[in-house]
Amino acid sequence: MKEIKNAVQLGVLVGQKNYHALREILVEMNPVDIAQFIGELPEEQAVVTFRTLPKMQAMEVFAELDAESQQQIVEAINDRELQALMDELAVDDAVDMLEEMPATLVKRILRQSSHQTRALLNQFLRYAEHTAGSIMTAEYTNLRRQMTVEDAIKRIRRIGEDRETIYTCYVTDSTRVLQGVVSVKDLLMAHDTELIEDIMEPDVIAVHTAEDQEKAVDLMAKYDLIALPVVDGENRLVGIVTVDDAVDVIQEEATEDFEKMAGIAPSEKPYLKTGVFSLAKNRFLWLLILMVSGMITGAILGHYEAAFSAIPLLVSFIPMLTDAGGNAGSQSSTLVIRGMALGEIEMKDFFAVLWKEARVSVLVGVPLAVVNFARIVISYPGSTLVAGTVSLTLVFTVVFANAVGGILPMVAKVFKIDPALMAAPLISSLVDACSLVIYFTIAMVLLPI
Amino acid sequence: MKEIKNAVQLGVLVGQKNYHALREILVEMNPVDIAQFIGELPEEQAVVTFRTLPKMQAMEVFAELDAESQQQIVEAINDRELQALMDELAVDDAVDMLEEMPATLVKRILRQSSHQTRALLNQFLRYAEHTAGSIMTAEYTNLRRQMTVEDAIKRIRRIGEDRETIYTCYVTDSTRVLQGVVSVKDLLMAHDTELIEDIMEPDVIAVHTAEDQEKAVDLMAKYDLIALPVVDGENRLVGIVTVDDAVDVIQEEATEDFEKMAGIAPSEKPYLKTGVFSLAKNRFLWLLILMVSGMITGAILGHYEAAFSAIPLLVSFIPMLTDAGGNAGSQSSTLVIRGMALGEIEMKDFFAVLWKEARVSVLVGVPLAVVNFARIVISYPGSTLVAGTVSLTLVFTVVFANAVGGILPMVAKVFKIDPALMAAPLISSLVDACSLVIYFTIAMVLLPI
Repeated sequence: MKEIKNAVQLGVLVGQKNYHALREILVEMNPVDIAQFIGELPEEQAVVTFRTLPKMQAMEVFAELDAESQQQIVEAINDRELQALMDELAVDDAVDMLEEMPATLVKRILRQSSHQTRALLNQFLRYAEHTAGSIMTAEYTNLRRQMTVEDAIKRIRRIGEDRETIYTCYVTDSTRVLQGVVSVKDLLMAHDTELIEDIMEPDVIAVHTAEDQEKAVDLMAKYDLIALPVVDGENRLVGIVTVDDAVDVIQEEATEDFEKMAGIAPSEKPYLKTGVFSLAKNRFLWLLILMVSGMITGAILGHYEAAFSAIPLLVSFIPMLTDAGGNAGSQSSTLVIRGMALGEIEMKDFFAVLWKEARVSVLVGVPLAVVNFARIVISYPGSTLVAGTVSLTLVFTVVFANAVGGILPMVAKVFKIDPALMAAPLISSLVDACSLVIYFTIAMVLLPI
Repeated sequence: MKEIKNAVQLGVLVGQKNYHALREILVEMNPVDIAQFIGELPEEQAVVTFRTLPKMQAMEVFAELDAESQQQIVEAINDRELQALMDELAVDDAVDMLEEMPATLVKRILRQSSHQTRALLNQFLRYAEHTAGSIMTAEYTNLRRQMTVEDAIKRIRRIGEDRETIYTCYVTDSTRVLQGVVSVKDLLMAHDTELIEDIMEPDVIAVHTAEDQEKAVDLMAKYDLIALPVVDGENRLVGIVTVDDAVDVIQEEATEDFEKMAGIAPSEKPYLKTGVFSLAKNRFLWLLILMVSGMITGAILGHYEAAFSAIPLLVSFIPMLTDAGGNAGSQSSTLVIRGMALGEIEMKDFFAVLWKEARVSVLVGVPLAVVNFARIVISYPGSTLVAGTVSLTLVFTVVFANAVGGILPMVAKVFKIDPALMAAPLISSLVDACSLVIYFTIAMVLLPI
């Protein structure tokens, strides 16, 4: 790949301290690639390389760097450089950076920002994590309803350079109240003399600053938006969420669900950058909870000691039965949790889900039981009753597991618990205990114990 | 919510057959909302309501309808209406529709399309599923390098109405070879007399038609693109992937991984729209495989009948041990699978992952074992050796489970197997069997069996 060849060449130039040649290649590169390259360099070289960049490009690259490299650079540059950087950086990128930095550095950064930037940063830092306010940026293009299309295009050409996105323009009044939306496409397709108020869409899809970021992103995905306006309680425009940030949120939210569904406390950092202690801490609590629930299952099992002392063969089917239950429950809960996350399954579908799962579990449970029955009768001739016990248990376990897996995520939502927590680990533990009770209850009836 | 109130009002108007009032409300609504409304109506009313829409809006709404409603409408409208619809519909939307329809309807649709549209549809239908070609659209804006900015803006204003996105324009030569990219923002920021070749970016980030759609989407996420050009073997521009379709692909790919990781064959349709037989079929194979592996575990357990006949208490710790192993393995495999999907973990990180998991498993395994030891000694006084056996097994099981969970997804990739299949269900089965062998091996050594 081109990038790897580039990376080697660039590395050589850094090693030779040939900053002139380095700069010449860097200015032609994409900021994302430069940031990746700088992130791989040792601290000292990273800072030197960053300083070779022209001012505007430096700002773009800085926004793409990881928190660690950003901190190294902020620590290394002088106040004048920092000041220039802060006044160029988009507010959302600046806020992301500040949230990762130690307090002393944050103070220095805020001191070096212009009055206006500082006020904005302080405002943005107050929005709670995972809200629309926390992912929005303040750089948007606003127009007035009395402008003509020609005025509007002129205004965009004049101020657009600083704006995160110019393709969706928002029409506001003098108190910043949101009145309409007009895309650059609409502007280009209209006649120069038309008025903005005649071509704007007055029904704007917008979210409140305190709204969950997931809601904002869902709206953008549903209506295919490249930007979503964020308003305050008085419907005043305070910022926009751009589609590139929305994509990041979608990835993060999916990752969080993957982690929760495996019984891991979500982490903000990528796996390889997370410390061993954080990884252990994120996993320990659930393992402990599940160990305790495993102990309860064990205690239940202990009650049936008489049964498996009489027929030890019964023990050897326990792993198969608990696994089958756990897997069936994990299948149905995964489908329902994901369906809820995508907004495809809602509370009103409760009985539809239950009825679907009931039918599915009979459709999968009965054939599994038949295979199982045949296998036991063949492997252990004369154990027809044991085979019957195991197969019956299998059907009941699958039905129970599918029902629990399908329903529990929805019940969780009623109690304002994240449905993603009602996934494989918890459901397996629950189903394990119940499948054993079913197993030995049937065994007591059918077998001579 | 506004939408619900709207839905009720609209429903009443449909019921009263007051199509005039209905149309008046619908023309002001967003196509996504109209499509959702029509999708909820019974077949007959759905078609009638669709027909009340003005032509341009009808096309937009049609593109947003689900496959079932699209088919009902195609079956109900006459050839002239169908012809108009096909010539207005974006190629990617048309292809998505055709892929879901029965062959006889596809034939009728292709017959009613213009020669040009039909050629394009046939070309697009040939791109394999999950490739960049299969998700691209043919509606893009192309410019020539010798054009001035003024010419370019004029061209966009003339042809833009038909294009899926106008914000990224592609510079091609007379044989459609891709030479550069220029955004509408660049055009608006430049002077009218500048030449496109002077302001375009010649290093275009593009993908080949046969490239995996995931690759295309990853590039768009990495470089914050709102459109990505798709080229053929001769670097000729054939289409673009737009960011709204990329968002859909990201959601779909995540859903597919959720399903695979729960041992479910991926389904294209939402849960509630998938038939009970399909749901059962998608789940049965993995349940069967896992049941067989559960039987193998059972057979292993059978070998140790002497041990648990001598000390029946040993049986009651089996669920806890297998659960802990399964959960630990599921935690590490989930993190590695997701990290690989996001490109954060690569093959070169193999030993880094292994080393991380080794340390994490000691950090979580030892405290779990201590808790466990204390609990057994308290609950069953005099069972110190049993407590030791269980606790030692727990540590070894967690270490083994984390190692297998971390490594198996990476090994799978070497053999070109989807890492997502190396998730909880498979890992649990594997770890179950091994933890039992560890358990009884330790028991045989420590206990008087």
